[in-house]
Amino acid sequence: MTATNPAADPGARGDRPGRIMSGEMAEQPAVLRRILDEGAPRIRETAERIAARNPRFVLLTARGTSDNAALYAKYLLEIRLGRPCGLTSMSTTTAYQARQDLTDCLVIAVSQSGGSPDLVASTRAAREAGAVTLAVTNNPGSPLAEAAEFHIDVLAGPEKALPATKTYTAELLSLYLLVEGLRGGGDGAGEAKALPDLAESVLARREEVRQLAARYRFAERMVITSRGYGYPTAKEAALKLMETSYIPALSYSGADLLHGPLAMVDNVSPVIAIVPDGRGGQALQPVLDRLRDRGADLVVVGPERQVADASAGFVLPTQGVPEELQPVLEILPLQLLAYEVTIARGQDPDAPRALAKVTETR
Amino acid sequence: MTATNPAADPGARGDRPGRIMSGEMAEQPAVLRRILDEGAPRIRETAERIAARNPRFVLLTARGTSDNAALYAKYLLEIRLGRPCGLTSMSTTTAYQARQDLTDCLVIAVSQSGGSPDLVASTRAAREAGAVTLAVTNNPGSPLAEAAEFHIDVLAGPEKALPATKTYTAELLSLYLLVEGLRGGGDGAGEAKALPDLAESVLARREEVRQLAARYRFAERMVITSRGYGYPTAKEAALKLMETSYIPALSYSGADLLHGPLAMVDNVSPVIAIVPDGRGGQALQPVLDRLRDRGADLVVVGPERQVADASAGFVLPTQGVPEELQPVLEILPLQLLAYEVTIARGQDPDAPRALAKVTETR
Repeated sequence: MTATNPAADPGARGDRPGRIMSGEMAEQPAVLRRILDEGAPRIRETAERIAARNPRFVLLTARGTSDNAALYAKYLLEIRLGRPCGLTSMSTTTAYQARQDLTDCLVIAVSQSGGSPDLVASTRAAREAGAVTLAVTNNPGSPLAEAAEFHIDVLAGPEKALPATKTYTAELLSLYLLVEGLRGGGDGAGEAKALPDLAESVLARREEVRQLAARYRFAERMVITSRGYGYPTAKEAALKLMETSYIPALSYSGADLLHGPLAMVDNVSPVIAIVPDGRGGQALQPVLDRLRDRGADLVVVGPERQVADASAGFVLPTQGVPEELQPVLEILPLQLLAYEVTIARGQDPDAPRALAKVTETR
Repeated sequence: MTATNPAADPGARGDRPGRIMSGEMAEQPAVLRRILDEGAPRIRETAERIAARNPRFVLLTARGTSDNAALYAKYLLEIRLGRPCGLTSMSTTTAYQARQDLTDCLVIAVSQSGGSPDLVASTRAAREAGAVTLAVTNNPGSPLAEAAEFHIDVLAGPEKALPATKTYTAELLSLYLLVEGLRGGGDGAGEAKALPDLAESVLARREEVRQLAARYRFAERMVITSRGYGYPTAKEAALKLMETSYIPALSYSGADLLHGPLAMVDNVSPVIAIVPDGRGGQALQPVLDRLRDRGADLVVVGPERQVADASAGFVLPTQGVPEELQPVLEILPLQLLAYEVTIARGQDPDAPRALAKVTETR
């Protein structure tokens, strides 16, 4: 997945469409290694300083791809740290000037660029309201990193493609290490040490993904579902597909899917299910059964036995990877899928219409 | 909008498609009146008892339509009560058995039926974890009402249509009165007293909505956006359209729309914007400008001047209605729209494929 293996990475061979996105997807194993080698000790130290302040409630603030990483952190914080959590609605601060008492709260802002003015403003407001503030960004010199009391650098290197890929997986792993550090338990970096090699093996299977992509070349819509730790993956996969291929991709937790949108699933709405190897996958089982009963075209990203029961799929290597770390791998075939579907439709994944890299919402 | 005026309510004249949904939409002014007359004093008393416990954080738990009502409450709780808030991921309790310390937390479960086993289980778990628990349901005899320490009855009367309508607006108004009661300030029922008549006037304009519906008869997808207090309306409108007409309707806060999905908006993806008359509408303005620049087909539900600037729209009567109460009115033309689009497509709004009224996710 590097310049020495151009066959596996056709986008990197010149000015072909998607060259930038393709290159950044391929960097992910190296980024994960860098976080484990260089980032982990610093994240641990930051986590210990935050834990000493004993936050009782955690608020997460982010947008777009980083919001999906924040949702992943919410599951970790609730399940592994046992702290109640919320995702903030930034407009409550920026549009409505809400004054909240945030004593005992940890407010975590997640942002690739660290440059969105609304994130900076809401982080400043949170700090003034008494919160412990932490910025998780890819730019330690950013206004957001400066606005927050603590900062974690996700070490992904400059990201130039408009569809974020390597910063997403970098944020996931950094947030995992943060929560493990807040728990003060075992060595999170140890649990995660298999990820870089596994990520490399997944990214090398581009031909498999290209075959799956053919299925969606003429799709007019898609539904993506998962549950538990896999749900942020479903949301991020939908965002990636929409911003590159423009296919309306609707993401739902499996439970929410049964509450209405299931009516929309039929033979013209293909479904992608991310099936975690663990309790999230078990909780998703009744939803998978319902989808099969309805004759839905179901593509599974997950364990081999789940893929075998589906219309098609991508077997994820999860042996020895705890469920809470599988999202770092799950998104990889789906990033590749967004890329390949977009190429198959004659579009350029590097040039989504109407997007700017730093979105200046206020 | 009653049986004495069948011309305004064609669905009620026999076994025509959508008869049940149509009848329940028409009941909404009466339900709102009942809440203000009979419900308000009881909600006030419940709110005072909860306020005496001085909760510092609020968690909201719900699914489907009730989840959109819960999101509305989140804005109220953050902006008007100044309490940090989160929407819970039920699977953290039901699938992963997370153990959280919920001392000082108020946990509010919102559910039409009060019968979903996962809501009952997570409310029980919250109570055991030290939270003050409140169920907001349409059934005081339900397992959820019994599982929670406190209960608010939204007084909507039995809801039979699969697409929830009257229970949504009943939940919104009940949650508004709750938050006003928690604030211990003025009389929330007074602020809301214009709503029943205004709701009646909106529901009487079915012919206007029918004309808007013609526009979407052949739509393959839709984008619905808003900001602030209007954002839950965007989500609920999208859910209503999907579960009745099966049109993939994607909802985004205006700020999130700029972070990716905007690439998907073009002349084949019509946009509906709910423009609150207030700060949410002001914050949405740059998004509306971007959409106009892109030549998007933009239909506005909001004040007259905003509708005049759009491709088409529905002028909402908001004179004297504070921004935070406008969602009770905003959803009405969008419920009618879902109904009319579904009828125009030759489908039956009362018989969505694959839906059950009480969804037994665990």
